[in-house]
Amino acid sequence: ASAVRTASKKLTIGMIPADGIGREVLPAAQRAIEALGSSIPKPTFVPLLAGFELFTRTGQALPEETVDSLKHECNAAMFGAVSSPSRKVTGYSSPIVALRKKLDLYANVRPVKSVDGTSGRKVDMVIVRENTECLYIKEETQTTTPAGKEARATRLITERASRRIGQMAFEIALNRPNRHLTIVHKSNVLSVTDGLFRETVRAVPKLPEVGGRYDAVTVDEQLVDSMVYRMFREPEVFDVAVAPNMYGDIISDAAAALVGSLGLVPSVNAGDSFVMGEPVHGSAPDIVGKSIANPIAAIRSAAMLLSHLGHHDAAKRIDDAVDSVLREGQVLTPDLGGKSTTEEVTEAVVKRI
Amino acid sequence: ASAVRTASKKLTIGMIPADGIGREVLPAAQRAIEALGSSIPKPTFVPLLAGFELFTRTGQALPEETVDSLKHECNAAMFGAVSSPSRKVTGYSSPIVALRKKLDLYANVRPVKSVDGTSGRKVDMVIVRENTECLYIKEETQTTTPAGKEARATRLITERASRRIGQMAFEIALNRPNRHLTIVHKSNVLSVTDGLFRETVRAVPKLPEVGGRYDAVTVDEQLVDSMVYRMFREPEVFDVAVAPNMYGDIISDAAAALVGSLGLVPSVNAGDSFVMGEPVHGSAPDIVGKSIANPIAAIRSAAMLLSHLGHHDAAKRIDDAVDSVLREGQVLTPDLGGKSTTEEVTEAVVKRI
Ligand SMILES: CC(C)[C@H](C(=O)O)[C@@H](O)C(=O)O
Ligand SMILES: CC(C)[C@H](C(=O)O)[C@@H](O)C(=O)O
Repeated sequence: ASAVRTASKKLTIGMIPADGIGREVLPAAQRAIEALGSSIPKPTFVPLLAGFELFTRTGQALPEETVDSLKHECNAAMFGAVSSPSRKVTGYSSPIVALRKKLDLYANVRPVKSVDGTSGRKVDMVIVRENTECLYIKEETQTTTPAGKEARATRLITERASRRIGQMAFEIALNRPNRHLTIVHKSNVLSVTDGLFRETVRAVPKLPEVGGRYDAVTVDEQLVDSMVYRMFREPEVFDVAVAPNMYGDIISDAAAALVGSLGLVPSVNAGDSFVMGEPVHGSAPDIVGKSIANPIAAIRSAAMLLSHLGHHDAAKRIDDAVDSVLREGQVLTPDLGGKSTTEEVTEAVVKRI
Repeated sequence: ASAVRTASKKLTIGMIPADGIGREVLPAAQRAIEALGSSIPKPTFVPLLAGFELFTRTGQALPEETVDSLKHECNAAMFGAVSSPSRKVTGYSSPIVALRKKLDLYANVRPVKSVDGTSGRKVDMVIVRENTECLYIKEETQTTTPAGKEARATRLITERASRRIGQMAFEIALNRPNRHLTIVHKSNVLSVTDGLFRETVRAVPKLPEVGGRYDAVTVDEQLVDSMVYRMFREPEVFDVAVAPNMYGDIISDAAAALVGSLGLVPSVNAGDSFVMGEPVHGSAPDIVGKSIANPIAAIRSAAMLLSHLGHHDAAKRIDDAVDSVLREGQVLTPDLGGKSTTEEVTEAVVKRI
């Protein structure tokens, strides 16, 4: 995700499997990193707790020790997946949303790419999702009036956050062959908040400190509803898309559907001094314990993490290994039409690293 | 959209073409209604002004006379489409959003159904979108801090609006073969606002005045991101979906993409005493003036309008005519892979009514 930067010497990775299949796919990410051997600094993996299941057992979804270790001991992390309560649960708040905010991981970068051999459409795009504000600030209130309950949530869009996510998106676009950026918003309804997002991102190339760096990047925009429509009708026209938090959440899943499985889509949550890999899929309660969770999103998230820390060759070795497993099409989990287990797919990838 | 109700004797329809292809497709809707002859009360069509183009000429997007006529003269309306400004325009506010609110058209009902002969997936669902609140209340503020501009929008969810949209959705589900309702929300992040929406809709079947009427309707729920994913992966599992305003906007476009073209998807904006038909597509500046806009969404919206006013047989005659044109596949606009004009498709439909 990031541009030029010297490779980190330290590789202390907090491992937070959290819930459901998060626990089944995180070991695969670890094995892929270990398979790189001496081409990267010797990694240390620090097991850390978080999640909805932890909350139901202990009353805490994100223990302080986890945050402390991430802040002071680790320079990176891998997050598995988190379950969502099926009813309102007092005192519970999503640990992944909290982690993004606490570690100021302001960019959620989600590359979605189809691979020959899988069933999806031809797609090669990167979704750059703002990760700290919008409706995700969770400022909500409820009152009772004579007409019944009324609830309000605040949606926050700041120039600062829009600018830094915009800059990240331009940087990513600049490093891709098509150098195209689509700004996703709904400023025909939200003229102030989405207006600010749009104008701020548009203005990034003109910032004095940017100095013409992004002149080669072409920019257009899409209203979020129309974006979802067009992603399905003509996904091949998109390259990099930048969006406020909630739209980014939704269009990531749309893109994942296009490539055939959420089990293929990796991400990093990136800040200026920390990076956390995270498969885009959820905790998938329906397949927990069956050993059929697709480990590829987690493995690719590990590659993105390494790349973000400057270990580009190592990342490429992992990605190439995954690509060849997918292309060969012999060892695939059921979401991709195969019959293999999580373990078998991991094995196949590790052998090719 | 509505359940049992006696057919209206009055049929005074405000015609608001507004912008772009809205002007090209609204005449088609009028012709379809006129073709019904004496099987419906003699319709009166009242031409009314609104739109972004009107705003740029006169400074008014929605003149008072338009609202007055709708409130006092008409018992129904057809709306074409509205353009979105490509830059922030002071004083402009979307007339369609304003109309929904001023006429208390609290339900936006959008049936999305694939037809043999068109290229899309097999889909047969109805999206029931809350139409008056959520982020669409447009309460936005902006301040300037030392760190730059900060903008906030309020998202409002009330028990009252959630209950009436929920009841509408249950009613629609009850009248369909599968009798299934999916509640779309994001309560894993917005536990208060979306929590209220979810709980209120869930509680509708237990209302004393409902008295067991909806017992045959099965209910489940989807987080909005996962809803978009699943609509693409397995659209056939969905029947009726009910959603707060903004999610409803987005999933409508997703559904439209599935059936091959936004040009096929009709809607009504329905309140307790007024109904407004509206094709789901936009003003489509790229094809304005080319006579290739697909009139089917507008024609089907007219059918929905009639059905809402109790003229079910008349509505069915229009729908059957459209179905047979689509099935025959000889006269289609370019969005469906055909070469015919708006006029030719309209002609073909009218001939079959
Ligand atoms: C689990 C949930 C809070 C989360 C989000 O909405 O960000 C998830 O959907 C994601 O995309 O990472
Ligand atoms: C034009 C716009 C304000 C409108 C909306 O967001 O409701 C449109 O997208 C729709 O779906 O009718």
